[in-house]
Amino acid sequence: MKNNIKFENIAIIGLGLIGSSLALALKKHKIAKSTTGYAKSAKTRQIAKKLKLVSKVESSLEKTVKSADLVIICTPLSTYKTLIGSIRPYLKVGAIISDVGSAKSKVMADAEKILGNDFDFIPAHPIAGTEQSGPEAGFSELFINRWCIVTPYAHSKKKNIILIKKLWQKIGSSVEVMTPEHHDRVLAITSHLPHLIAYNIVNTAADLETVTKSDVIKYSASGFRDFTRIASSDPTMWRDIFINNKEAVLEMIGRFSEDLSVLQKAVRWGDAAALFKLFSGTRKIRKKIIAAGQDIDTADFGRVKKKLK
Amino acid sequence: MKNNIKFENIAIIGLGLIGSSLALALKKHKIAKSTTGYAKSAKTRQIAKKLKLVSKVESSLEKTVKSADLVIICTPLSTYKTLIGSIRPYLKVGAIISDVGSAKSKVMADAEKILGNDFDFIPAHPIAGTEQSGPEAGFSELFINRWCIVTPYAHSKKKNIILIKKLWQKIGSSVEVMTPEHHDRVLAITSHLPHLIAYNIVNTAADLETVTKSDVIKYSASGFRDFTRIASSDPTMWRDIFINNKEAVLEMIGRFSEDLSVLQKAVRWGDAAALFKLFSGTRKIRKKIIAAGQDIDTADFGRVKKKLK
Repeated sequence: MKNNIKFENIAIIGLGLIGSSLALALKKHKIAKSTTGYAKSAKTRQIAKKLKLVSKVESSLEKTVKSADLVIICTPLSTYKTLIGSIRPYLKVGAIISDVGSAKSKVMADAEKILGNDFDFIPAHPIAGTEQSGPEAGFSELFINRWCIVTPYAHSKKKNIILIKKLWQKIGSSVEVMTPEHHDRVLAITSHLPHLIAYNIVNTAADLETVTKSDVIKYSASGFRDFTRIASSDPTMWRDIFINNKEAVLEMIGRFSEDLSVLQKAVRWGDAAALFKLFSGTRKIRKKIIAAGQDIDTADFGRVKKKLK
Repeated sequence: MKNNIKFENIAIIGLGLIGSSLALALKKHKIAKSTTGYAKSAKTRQIAKKLKLVSKVESSLEKTVKSADLVIICTPLSTYKTLIGSIRPYLKVGAIISDVGSAKSKVMADAEKILGNDFDFIPAHPIAGTEQSGPEAGFSELFINRWCIVTPYAHSKKKNIILIKKLWQKIGSSVEVMTPEHHDRVLAITSHLPHLIAYNIVNTAADLETVTKSDVIKYSASGFRDFTRIASSDPTMWRDIFINNKEAVLEMIGRFSEDLSVLQKAVRWGDAAALFKLFSGTRKIRKKIIAAGQDIDTADFGRVKKKLK
């Protein structure tokens, strides 16, 4: 990496799983001469200091952004509007704003209205994370060999797009540039719908627990368990994603429900041929995912070594 | 373990993932003086011989069962009726029949008609498996610290129920005894519905691939990937499960769809409070599953070490 992508000061707003991981990765790869971290909660700031996530921890947004040539927003999508309005007066001339959010079109339209042409907002979305949250869940390797999608405006400065691309590449990611609309559709099917479905099935099972007592918990290894992991992701983050990617998500729910009705009918009529066909095609997708390096084909037979309760 | 639960000869019909794992576990723990394995396909028989899964590999059902004091059916549910009819004339007096199937009520009603009162069918269902299949996927540790559900008839002999219970305990499982009806309801929600949903979402995404090209594969790590693992399980096995547990599965699809409609409406109306509430409760279930030893709480951030394609 050339020195010209080294930043003077990078401000990270929000020090949850992604913010803290990003801070650690920037530090490890010396992407900036200094980093400033902002967290709303005193407890998070205390942990951030203890873990030395950033050069300086701040409780004031003004102090956080005033020296930054790059500000990366790592807070839930619902905070963007107020947050961007609050930092706007204190931004350095020529400062780049970026983020790590999971939905793009809506927040980009909002940000454009607030920032005008004075500042360049170059959004990014690292396809990385775990089901855990908070500043202590972060680790610098989180982005290695993961995709990061950058979704500039049509009018974004090329120079700034390249800076953001290089930053993510430097901390280990492969970067793709696409329109926010395309991003939102792709993520709706690969991420947002799967999470919605996982949350939904866990809730369906929870209601049923009164019928089968603790059986749902006890026999969860037979499939259900995997959904509960996905459905234990941060509820605030996910609430905001569904509010900010409504149209694409509703389209995918519609398609999913249509397909489920077909499957339901095949079960009701005992249509063995239709069921077999529907269950066979899915293996091909799995093979492509493994070939693309997005998963490994080692059999997963449960990660439990403890005695059963 | 006392010697009185040692069998003279155990016949295993079907040498797929479960049959081969069971064979290896029986051998390791010396549960029988000898074991006989049956497989329909010559290729499977060849592999079974090579891997020394059983004392003797047979291609004739008569030869497989004629000396067995316990016959364990490890073939798909759709084969039971014909299979039980075929072995019936050759069974030893007093032989116990068991199985490892994932649905119980329907096959038990079928078996009762064929076997009458002459033989005791004591079904069992090890809650264990991987997404892989075939005789080479088997390993003797598969059942360790997993549940095994035994579902006898009301008229089953106590002595025989105890023998089957002890067999599974000896190879590492914890055993629960319940009615076939209760089993089918519990598994419908913990296993059958999750698999149906996983198959469904993978098919929905597959249809969409024409729209977003290879993006579905590329960004699958964001949630979708986990569903493809579940949806790559054996299609024959799953076809048979849905045909043999129709009523309970249809009930669960109904409940799931109801819940999904509520969630869909909350997304459409941007009901932040409702979404947050629905996404928060699910973490409690996750915690209970971890407390019950059914999963661990280590963050899962993808199992990929390869370069992205």
